Amino acid sequence: MKLAEAVTAQTALVQRLLDGVAAIGDDPPGITRDAYGRGENEAQALIAEAGRALGLETSSDAGANLTLRWAAREAKAAPVLIASHLDSIVQGGNFDGAAGVIAGIGAIAALQAAGIEPRRDIEVMALRCEESVWFGLGLIGSRCLLARLPPGALDLPHARSGRTLAQSIAACGGDPARLRQGTPLRDPRDIGAYLEVHIEQAPQLVEAGAPVAICLANPGNVRHPFIGITGEDAHTGLPHRFRRDAALAGADLSLALERMWLAEEAAGRPMAVTIGRFHTLPERHSLTAIAGDFELSLDLRAFSADHLKALEVELGAIAAEISARRGVTILLGERSAAAPGLMDPGLIAGLAAAAVRCGLDAPKLNSPGSHDANNFAAAGVKTGMLLVRNRNGSHNPHEAMETADLMAAISVLAEWIANGDA
Amino acid sequence: MKLAEAVTAQTALVQRLLDGVAAIGDDPPGITRDAYGRGENEAQALIAEAGRALGLETSSDAGANLTLRWAAREAKAAPVLIASHLDSIVQGGNFDGAAGVIAGIGAIAALQAAGIEPRRDIEVMALRCEESVWFGLGLIGSRCLLARLPPGALDLPHARSGRTLAQSIAACGGDPARLRQGTPLRDPRDIGAYLEVHIEQAPQLVEAGAPVAICLANPGNVRHPFIGITGEDAHTGLPHRFRRDAALAGADLSLALERMWLAEEAAGRPMAVTIGRFHTLPERHSLTAIAGDFELSLDLRAFSADHLKALEVELGAIAAEISARRGVTILLGERSAAAPGLMDPGLIAGLAAAAVRCGLDAPKLNSPGSHDANNFAAAGVKTGMLLVRNRNGSHNPHEAMETADLMAAISVLAEWIANGDA
Repeated sequence: MKLAEAVTAQTALVQRLLDGVAAIGDDPPGITRDAYGRGENEAQALIAEAGRALGLETSSDAGANLTLRWAAREAKAAPVLIASHLDSIVQGGNFDGAAGVIAGIGAIAALQAAGIEPRRDIEVMALRCEESVWFGLGLIGSRCLLARLPPGALDLPHARSGRTLAQSIAACGGDPARLRQGTPLRDPRDIGAYLEVHIEQAPQLVEAGAPVAICLANPGNVRHPFIGITGEDAHTGLPHRFRRDAALAGADLSLALERMWLAEEAAGRPMAVTIGRFHTLPERHSLTAIAGDFELSLDLRAFSADHLKALEVELGAIAAEISARRGVTILLGERSAAAPGLMDPGLIAGLAAAAVRCGLDAPKLNSPGSHDANNFAAAGVKTGMLLVRNRNGSHNPHEAMETADLMAAISVLAEWIANGDA
Repeated sequence: MKLAEAVTAQTALVQRLLDGVAAIGDDPPGITRDAYGRGENEAQALIAEAGRALGLETSSDAGANLTLRWAAREAKAAPVLIASHLDSIVQGGNFDGAAGVIAGIGAIAALQAAGIEPRRDIEVMALRCEESVWFGLGLIGSRCLLARLPPGALDLPHARSGRTLAQSIAACGGDPARLRQGTPLRDPRDIGAYLEVHIEQAPQLVEAGAPVAICLANPGNVRHPFIGITGEDAHTGLPHRFRRDAALAGADLSLALERMWLAEEAAGRPMAVTIGRFHTLPERHSLTAIAGDFELSLDLRAFSADHLKALEVELGAIAAEISARRGVTILLGERSAAAPGLMDPGLIAGLAAAAVRCGLDAPKLNSPGSHDANNFAAAGVKTGMLLVRNRNGSHNPHEAMETADLMAAISVLAEWIANGDA
């Protein structure tokens, strides 16, 4: 069987796995697969079972990440990892993460069906807890694998179970003591390439009319999950000159950051600002009281470390100006950061060539979102990503990836393994 | 005893009553006297007891408002009402409302001690439920008295007890069936004057260094307690051109209304804008999601009906512009309105003259807040108000009226009754 036909023949398998993880996460109106909980665990079991059916060796590492290994008879190079994650946010969509793991299985199944032998080990990984909703920190599976957990991370509490990250990992068969050693579970120098397929989290491919894109870079981010603004509670009738309105200070901050964003983009420096939580205090706010307290979250993302650094300087200046003008205190509070992930030029070229051989016109795009790929790129692993068309963004019940578009990504992956750099 | 000395001699009584209502409302860190509940009922009982000790007749009307009547032997004119309210917001301060009721008692006690006979009946009223937190509608006691309840008001649920307003009034001995007749409990033409003492809800008197002000006008308001903005939930990485961010639309709306405010003030048209609740949805918002929904409350206040009408037109234009620009829907939702209250020129002059005779330099100010006085003014009753110095605004635990400043207001009130227009 030709490889293209062999890929198409895997459509039913891929659809069955997509439907399987959807059933596991069913939580109307969306999908919830809780990290280190029932949702992620059952999805891992389903994927492991699918791997065993293809004759893949399954294993679980100290971070409780699942690996399915298609061993080369005689490895000519270091292994290729094809990975993504199986957890979701609460009432999110089915495809953010899971589609990438299933793509790896689909590619191996297609290569096997086409009678192609791997020249080196191909490993499909389901990395744990990519979503930051569970611990206020994302990309945890790849952080565990590559010893990139920030200090204290193992003691963070799970948003749903309340267990610490260490307890959560141990409960899933992992080994937090090993993680505390602070050395990678796999030496990055022994990973030949890292590939990740992920739905695009913006409708740029819908706009472009293409099923798959070759990713150029993933944004890094700086996050302040709990920015607090303190002014003074006061009565509705207070004249303007006496007010220290924390909510209006929050409005100022949000719009100043949006203006910064638009100015940066206009100057050719892509980035994004998201203020997801933005609120007066539910237990205190009222129609007839000026808000003395306001809280917001901030996610700043950009595609180079220097750019992020400059944006943080600007954030500080904006906050200082608003504090002074409005008589409020702005505490940026907790800060987490993730490095931008630049894709490997050789992999970009190799995947683009594979796409051409598959007859696909695959644009090259910056990824809107950060991914586990960032940690591999930061660890010096040659990293590549394919983005799959998706109309409605991710982190919502309306993610709209077509299986046919995922099959297109699988064909590029399989073609690259069969005839490309692999 | 001279009247000035007689006023000073009531300081202990006034302090005892202030402390008494504080003890009733004790709810750290503030004061809660729930309307039609334990807090307001016990405060009414305390005030009624103080009235009886002065030989005043106590009665309760169909709205469950308390009246203490100091009867003239031979009335030469229609009665003077001295009124305010005893309810507070949740964990507010002690003085917003209660100080005005106690001022009426203090004035009568001082006049009695000075051996002065009233030329017409002097009535101290504790009007029910002035605060809008209990039913989303304020000034309810005076609305009941003057048949100014909006349609459906008697069916509104109490924020704490869940009982309707009709049930709440009945439970306090009132007569909702009488209120449904829609005619005033007292004919406004039979009220000679309405006087209200209230703490200033801004620090303008602190700024001016004066204990008491003569009020020129109370603002009317237009309120939208539940403005809803709907955009689209989306992922953090979504490029700006695709976003329909409801939170940033809320930020735009708030700052546009603030700019309108400052422009109006600069043009000599005093007003205020307060956005008390201003929030993404607690059950849905997250660090990594663009908010598709946002809610806020709006209180617009100004000192003439025409000005309020113009501000509403402007609000509509601002909302339409933001909706179009951000691709969101803005629903202003429920609307309530209260008419501005212009003080009677004769009473302004009379109270100012009384202040001069008391040796006080009392500035003339617009009131920052609306009060029950608005309903009396709107009903055609000659209305006057005294504002008492207060550093920290109201509706918060830090209201900071000095008893000495309340005694100054009582002296003006007593002087006006003894030698002025009364």
